[in-house]
Amino acid sequence: MPVNLAAPDPASLLPVAGVRLGIASAGIKKPGRRDITLFELAPGSQVAGVFTQNRFCAAPVTVCKQHLVSDDIRALLINTGNANAGTGEEGLNRARRTCAAVADLFGIKPEQVLPFSTGVILEPLPIDKILPALPAAQADLAANHWSEAAHAIMTTDIVAKGASRQMQLGGKTVTVTGIAKGSGMIHPNMATMLGYVATDAAIAPALMQRMVKDVADVSFNCVTVDGDTSTNDSFILIATGQAGNPEVTDAASADYAALKAALSDVAIELAQAMARDGEGATKFMTIAVEGGRDRAECKQIAYAIARSPLVKTAFFASDPNLGRILAAIGYAGVSDLDVNTLKVYLGDVLVAENGGRAASYTEAQGAAVMKEAEITVRVVLNRGSVDATVWTCDFSYDYVKINAEYRT
Amino acid sequence: MPVNLAAPDPASLLPVAGVRLGIASAGIKKPGRRDITLFELAPGSQVAGVFTQNRFCAAPVTVCKQHLVSDDIRALLINTGNANAGTGEEGLNRARRTCAAVADLFGIKPEQVLPFSTGVILEPLPIDKILPALPAAQADLAANHWSEAAHAIMTTDIVAKGASRQMQLGGKTVTVTGIAKGSGMIHPNMATMLGYVATDAAIAPALMQRMVKDVADVSFNCVTVDGDTSTNDSFILIATGQAGNPEVTDAASADYAALKAALSDVAIELAQAMARDGEGATKFMTIAVEGGRDRAECKQIAYAIARSPLVKTAFFASDPNLGRILAAIGYAGVSDLDVNTLKVYLGDVLVAENGGRAASYTEAQGAAVMKEAEITVRVVLNRGSVDATVWTCDFSYDYVKINAEYRT
Repeated sequence: MPVNLAAPDPASLLPVAGVRLGIASAGIKKPGRRDITLFELAPGSQVAGVFTQNRFCAAPVTVCKQHLVSDDIRALLINTGNANAGTGEEGLNRARRTCAAVADLFGIKPEQVLPFSTGVILEPLPIDKILPALPAAQADLAANHWSEAAHAIMTTDIVAKGASRQMQLGGKTVTVTGIAKGSGMIHPNMATMLGYVATDAAIAPALMQRMVKDVADVSFNCVTVDGDTSTNDSFILIATGQAGNPEVTDAASADYAALKAALSDVAIELAQAMARDGEGATKFMTIAVEGGRDRAECKQIAYAIARSPLVKTAFFASDPNLGRILAAIGYAGVSDLDVNTLKVYLGDVLVAENGGRAASYTEAQGAAVMKEAEITVRVVLNRGSVDATVWTCDFSYDYVKINAEYRT
Repeated sequence: MPVNLAAPDPASLLPVAGVRLGIASAGIKKPGRRDITLFELAPGSQVAGVFTQNRFCAAPVTVCKQHLVSDDIRALLINTGNANAGTGEEGLNRARRTCAAVADLFGIKPEQVLPFSTGVILEPLPIDKILPALPAAQADLAANHWSEAAHAIMTTDIVAKGASRQMQLGGKTVTVTGIAKGSGMIHPNMATMLGYVATDAAIAPALMQRMVKDVADVSFNCVTVDGDTSTNDSFILIATGQAGNPEVTDAASADYAALKAALSDVAIELAQAMARDGEGATKFMTIAVEGGRDRAECKQIAYAIARSPLVKTAFFASDPNLGRILAAIGYAGVSDLDVNTLKVYLGDVLVAENGGRAASYTEAQGAAVMKEAEITVRVVLNRGSVDATVWTCDFSYDYVKINAEYRT
């Protein structure tokens, strides 16, 4: 069950001026399932994205990258039930067909539409079901359909994921709202992550790609469930520019920093929600690595801990198994790491220093921390001033059950 | 249960001239457990080793590396029940104390002894138990105690691991015998691998380090259970030079190649045995990547598949889940990989080509392959002429059970 996570109150997901969302049922996998989501963006909206690094990237990811060369994106189409991945040239054709159909409805060009798919891979995208459902999705467009969209993009997520913030920027109230889907299971499944964060703030087109990378770096790129990278992972940032704030034009400005903080805040909540709702999760783990020389080495160590099956099963068992954490730090690949100068904390308890268990540590202290549903592992490297944090969940019987028995 | 693996018939483990083994009980973890193994090597023996890359390397690993600077190693001491890892300066002192005690017994210098430990980490090595047991181990020394040693170095391996080969080299019969311990569970555990392969062949000291790396590269460095690298992993090659063959002095010679093949044959059997006896294993998987530009990229892809929890749970479920294999290939990190030109086979069945599922593939074909206890995944990259093979096991409920419940 998700760790301290409930679906957001629909009223808490604030409309973003310039964004309307429409949901419909195409019956892709199950009759009646609301599996199609349309985003309509007002003219002048800026859109940027970051995508999976997987070499087997899905057809919609390829099409998204091509369409993002234009800076006049006006619609997004998301379907669940089929990932359109591992589908070759015909997959690209079908992704483009859906863009063309949305373009016809909206009176725009196909290149102004971004397609997203999540679900079963290696199966042809059923456009015969998707295309007829588009008018209903268009008819459903409304500014307050964020909660409905958060539900519609779920695959086997247990809980819908959404968050909102408001802030002042240049004397105007700016809204940020985002939705995401995480590590749900799909036949034959990967833990595809889709994230969409929209704001009505005005930001210069030239800064959008930098902003989406900055935000992803501290949010969606800091979460792992099992270390498997999907073919479809996508994170999209939308800025409609309708809040009336003076356009943010300088990445070194206070306004850029403030907007980045608000966008990151929403994106972090969504990314953490993915780990809280990870497959079979019973614990939510924060791995914070501090005092590194650069962010890359901090992330490398954090991910080594977060991905280790031995660490994750120990957390499932509420076992303060320091050896597994130390070993993961040791094999993370930081070749000149001095293990005698680093410190490791479980929660607030110093557990390791001087290359071994801390003299002050008692098993009872560790056991007390491990009983909690949310646990922080903190590694202080003492070799620099850079930090990185990664979120993950534990590794339970249910993880194996979900992943082994899905097709049986 | 181990996959198609039984303990070797003691008679099948052939004595190696110049090597004697003695076992004794020090009661490190349990009273009466035979937990101490001594190797006595004849004068003139050559010894080389490769060790864990983990930055938290155990005290005995550090001492081994220091002692291997000398080329006159005459004894090895292995204990189970305690890994002497994460034990700081005192751990080094205690490892050296055991070497000094063996040296006293044998009338040699402490630097001529290599220490090895496997078992619980973060606990002081109980030299008060080990030192008094050494005379009994010495009294037990015999050339035909390989099977006893294979059992004594086990931690929670289910099955003892050993293998022998004989070959002709320069008109003489040469014997190769090895033992290993693998992915057994120890409190608080890592899957420490220890491997010892001895031959009576004569080989020039200058070639020993190259040979041990050559052999490790095709054997112990090709096996994974859960991707966690232990603090204590060690592989030692011993050549006593007593077979009477003309000394192998040229790495480009036919004799070098022939000896390497025989040593590798034994080491591969031992490495595969570790995967067959992996924690919770129900399947033995061979991941063969062919047609790569270099061995590094082949291994990178093979390990991405072999380590993926999604792939491993699918094999546990006998589910021909192609998407998970393709995704692992895609995220392996080979940045210029063209997924449209590679082919993937499950057993002999072509399952993927042209960036997606093969047109000829049927689920029934895949299901038939997945029912077997031993399964080969073959990836043909079609971009070069280099191959690499990795062995692993599946990921079962018992893996979680063993790793989560060990201390409860």
